Amino acid sequence: MSLLVIGTVAFDAIETPFGKTDKILGGAATYISLAASYFSKNINLVSVVGEDFPQENIKMLQRHYINTDGLQILKGQKTFFWSGKYHTDMNTRDTITTELNVLENFNPVVPEAYQDCEFLMLGNLVPKVQRQVIEQMKTRPKLIVLDTMNFWMDIALEDLKKTISMVDVLTVNDGEARQLSGEYSLVKAAQKILAMGPKYLIIKKGEHGALLFNKDQVFFAPALPLEEVFDPTGAGDSFAGGFIGYLTETKDISFENMKRAVIFGSAMASFCVEKFGTEKLVALTPKQLDDRIQEFIDLVQFDIALIS
Amino acid sequence: MSLLVIGTVAFDAIETPFGKTDKILGGAATYISLAASYFSKNINLVSVVGEDFPQENIKMLQRHYINTDGLQILKGQKTFFWSGKYHTDMNTRDTITTELNVLENFNPVVPEAYQDCEFLMLGNLVPKVQRQVIEQMKTRPKLIVLDTMNFWMDIALEDLKKTISMVDVLTVNDGEARQLSGEYSLVKAAQKILAMGPKYLIIKKGEHGALLFNKDQVFFAPALPLEEVFDPTGAGDSFAGGFIGYLTETKDISFENMKRAVIFGSAMASFCVEKFGTEKLVALTPKQLDDRIQEFIDLVQFDIALIS
Repeated sequence: MSLLVIGTVAFDAIETPFGKTDKILGGAATYISLAASYFSKNINLVSVVGEDFPQENIKMLQRHYINTDGLQILKGQKTFFWSGKYHTDMNTRDTITTELNVLENFNPVVPEAYQDCEFLMLGNLVPKVQRQVIEQMKTRPKLIVLDTMNFWMDIALEDLKKTISMVDVLTVNDGEARQLSGEYSLVKAAQKILAMGPKYLIIKKGEHGALLFNKDQVFFAPALPLEEVFDPTGAGDSFAGGFIGYLTETKDISFENMKRAVIFGSAMASFCVEKFGTEKLVALTPKQLDDRIQEFIDLVQFDIALIS
Repeated sequence: MSLLVIGTVAFDAIETPFGKTDKILGGAATYISLAASYFSKNINLVSVVGEDFPQENIKMLQRHYINTDGLQILKGQKTFFWSGKYHTDMNTRDTITTELNVLENFNPVVPEAYQDCEFLMLGNLVPKVQRQVIEQMKTRPKLIVLDTMNFWMDIALEDLKKTISMVDVLTVNDGEARQLSGEYSLVKAAQKILAMGPKYLIIKKGEHGALLFNKDQVFFAPALPLEEVFDPTGAGDSFAGGFIGYLTETKDISFENMKRAVIFGSAMASFCVEKFGTEKLVALTPKQLDDRIQEFIDLVQFDIALIS
């Protein structure tokens, strides 16, 4: 099976209490693809960058089995740039700069060779653009996962709802689930959001883990308690990448298998935040991944006999 | 084995977005004892109330196998009273009234018949008073669990640290763990707090679950995602009661068994918040408890094969 990833490829400049970076590689599709590459060797990227985007970054993506034929490089233009500064609690951040550049008129084109992808991951983007990708697929993918954010709820809610109605899995954080549903209880929020179309909802709670809902079931994956969260940038995208990468490789979209996928997603997020940017995600070994999964098992596994 | 519970028995008046109550039965020791009574039939209470405390409440406690011989009833005095109002998020509240009454000069006396208790639960109280109880025990209990709060960190930190150094398990919430340790990372906070004396630390995160630490291990118990949190009052105490009640009954203080105890504690907390005050805790069936435990198993249980 193969995976199609749509989203931003960008430059980020990040400041956290632990230090700051110059312009480094970032973007939702970058994190998603890299995280997915530890599971699937058949990843197809659709995104856009400017002429300033270094060839070495493209080669790095290709070394991670990421097909970059769908990465548009716009002559005379600049790559999307974001800079931000995290507060001490690492849960909140201020955006310092957003330069849309090539993103301003991004018109994703799904190459013919990508048409057979059975898994589609729509990273956070303008909802209308995400929808254009779905509409370009000649055969509907087996599973479409959509990530979005509160910004689109504020300025393009109806468009977003239209896109949400076309996907199988929606991923949002807890605040966004509350905003989208108008419900404070996440259980009630999930019911309302599932009624909008998706069969599955993932609510990401950062350091508090993630919830996977379908109409009848709920699963909770913890976040690993870490000594240091170095840089939270890309954690949600790494989660999504691990999730969709695992599903693509195992070809199994049952709730049971999605539970495993959520654990693998959580593992990728836990790696991501341990270094700046994509630093940790570009050089993981299978042994590191296995050890991390074992930590998740040890963290929540218990063996209980019922009473009556 | 038997359990000794020290803490407040009180009247509460509670307002939440779902309604408000008149003076109802409350107090840390009340919630702890009631929750523990679903596991142990040998619970001994030390607390103090005024002449205004209804006999029917005492009878209710006794029906839950709670020995009230150590419950002092002070003639001509009034029971401790607290009233508060919860905000919409249910995570924060304003105290409206605190009338210490009988608590002002509470001098706990451990009856001779309680001296053989092997499990001791010190509910939130003045740290010096908690210590007086430990010092009254002729034989040190097998396990001493201490609950406390930020208030004592603000006004009696050295006293609190002295008491903490004498116990086996400390329970605090995440904000309190950060305050006590001066560390934002809960992993680092746990290491610092364990260096203060306790062999185990439980960090309660409310709707985000609870972490159990010892020097080398960590276990995470989720909170059950609920449709409604009706009244959070007593949730932490119900957690502690389920935890210590289960340990008392199983007589096993290994880390493996403490993991189970944390799950039972979480189950009792999840029941507690579904109704006002102690309403739900006074009338649970073994079947209800089993069903709830099964929900916890279903919520976090997954079956994963490592990759390499």
